[in-house]
Amino acid sequence: MKGLSEIGEFGLIKRIRKWTSTTNPALVKGIGDDVAVIESAEKSWLITTDLLIEGIHFERSWTDPFHLGRKALFVNLSDIAAMGGTPKYFLISLGLPKNLPLPFITSFYQGLKNGAKRFRVDLIGGDTSLSKKIIINICLLGEGKKGSLLFRSGAKVGDDLFVSGTLGDAALGLRILQKNGLRGSPKGLVNKHISPFPRIHLGQAIAKHHWATAMIDVSDGLLIDTHHLLEESRVGAHIWEDRIPLSTRYQQWVHAFSRNPYQFALRGGEDYELLFTAPPEMRRRISRLALSLKTPITKIGEILPKKEGLHLIRKDGRRYSPSCLGFEHFR
Amino acid sequence: MKGLSEIGEFGLIKRIRKWTSTTNPALVKGIGDDVAVIESAEKSWLITTDLLIEGIHFERSWTDPFHLGRKALFVNLSDIAAMGGTPKYFLISLGLPKNLPLPFITSFYQGLKNGAKRFRVDLIGGDTSLSKKIIINICLLGEGKKGSLLFRSGAKVGDDLFVSGTLGDAALGLRILQKNGLRGSPKGLVNKHISPFPRIHLGQAIAKHHWATAMIDVSDGLLIDTHHLLEESRVGAHIWEDRIPLSTRYQQWVHAFSRNPYQFALRGGEDYELLFTAPPEMRRRISRLALSLKTPITKIGEILPKKEGLHLIRKDGRRYSPSCLGFEHFR
Repeated sequence: MKGLSEIGEFGLIKRIRKWTSTTNPALVKGIGDDVAVIESAEKSWLITTDLLIEGIHFERSWTDPFHLGRKALFVNLSDIAAMGGTPKYFLISLGLPKNLPLPFITSFYQGLKNGAKRFRVDLIGGDTSLSKKIIINICLLGEGKKGSLLFRSGAKVGDDLFVSGTLGDAALGLRILQKNGLRGSPKGLVNKHISPFPRIHLGQAIAKHHWATAMIDVSDGLLIDTHHLLEESRVGAHIWEDRIPLSTRYQQWVHAFSRNPYQFALRGGEDYELLFTAPPEMRRRISRLALSLKTPITKIGEILPKKEGLHLIRKDGRRYSPSCLGFEHFR
Repeated sequence: MKGLSEIGEFGLIKRIRKWTSTTNPALVKGIGDDVAVIESAEKSWLITTDLLIEGIHFERSWTDPFHLGRKALFVNLSDIAAMGGTPKYFLISLGLPKNLPLPFITSFYQGLKNGAKRFRVDLIGGDTSLSKKIIINICLLGEGKKGSLLFRSGAKVGDDLFVSGTLGDAALGLRILQKNGLRGSPKGLVNKHISPFPRIHLGQAIAKHHWATAMIDVSDGLLIDTHHLLEESRVGAHIWEDRIPLSTRYQQWVHAFSRNPYQFALRGGEDYELLFTAPPEMRRRISRLALSLKTPITKIGEILPKKEGLHLIRKDGRRYSPSCLGFEHFR
């Protein structure tokens, strides 16, 4: 009998998509993008949800409850950022162990409140239940201007491929945590894992000016998320390895954990940076936007015809197709 | 150090409410009702979420995946029913064990689809993750006409208290399952636990005609949910024990499990019937509605001033205040 481990997370999502096709005209985007989009007469409603489970997505020994609360909210905000939308409301479902100390929960909600205040979103409801492990599910509603939202689809052959910030820090930070524990780990990298920041303002700016053709947030890893964008846009791409933006801290620590200096930047998740495509004539405007928002934006590749697939180009010019795109649940 | 077990589920919800007060004028109802309500220019959006965890809310040995999928959706639909709204869209977050057989998931989605089709709701997104136990979180969006929605608040002194269907079947069914397992249990009661049905059409009819003043679904148990309605409406009530509607099957089986024949009807959860209040002059119209929808609606009590609290009246006329309202998570 076939099990989940054979089809993997993305195989499952493909099946779910087939099982649940819909014909509702108000539904602009359903399963397949990070966010569902419902159009009403006035505006577009964006809805996204993320599930965090203790022991799978986080460990109580590594993360304090304040940052756990903030992160649970911020990973959802990142999905809204990837469409250029404005987050508005959220509901939180919590599974909590019976013996959880009350100060843990108080601090968790303080983190949640802190994050909500930062981006002016309101907690409007939820559900609580007993559970052996901590379970956090947030469902977030945002809004966007009709015609100004960016999706995974839309990238055109000849477009540049850009990414914000630096990549791989969160995954390398997590790896160091797993090996050394909280005390022996470099704070900068660990913070990127424990306390990511959603690129809401960057996403809104990119969407507002209509400079980009497609956008996604890098949550599963650069290769997987690029693959998602290419699949939905029905195009291919190449990425220059040596143009992938790496932090100084990443470059200092990566050699202790992988022979491939790009390993965590390519296949690590939870960067929550924005990956987007734009026609070459937008390059100068995008540079100016990066300066004004004080956010690095780097051109890392180019969009090619679909038949080219996704490949990487080494510093010496040699091309290769990545054999593994990254981590997948259930596999 | 205080723990969750000392404040209980409802103590936690009270604290969350205090921690997260909001001032957004579009938000009509936030934490405190079953459903959050956001008003836009055209209509009211209703949003609700429910978390189901294996080993807490269900056992894989008792429920087949088809009915599990349907129930996960229907418990959310019941929240929308309690406002008189129309369910429209939902997102599902799933935590799934690695070794879960694919036919289980296929059948789960068939149940979900079957329920979705029955009430014309669309699955628009979600999240999947690895997990030790099965975790299901649904976030459901519905809509309602402005001014035609019913809330927990609104009950007035002198109103009648009505409930639909029969009470206690699901909880008694669960209790028998826990003792006898699936084979030794009466199908009718067990089905009420495994395959509840949301009172969407009844809820809509009650809300549309403006006959009722307040409404809630009986998900936690008659006493707890009556208590919630009274608290939000700032009133008291009495309930006649012998008017509580009990099914024939319930009456046959209850004696083997409790000396109090009303035990499961008063304190058992998951009935998903509608509990509502209406002024006495609506009695005949409500009777006619019950006939036309072929749904029993029973007057079980009356709304009193707040100082009277909640009490029950025995067949012999003696009154008593229930010492325990029912089950609460974390306690």
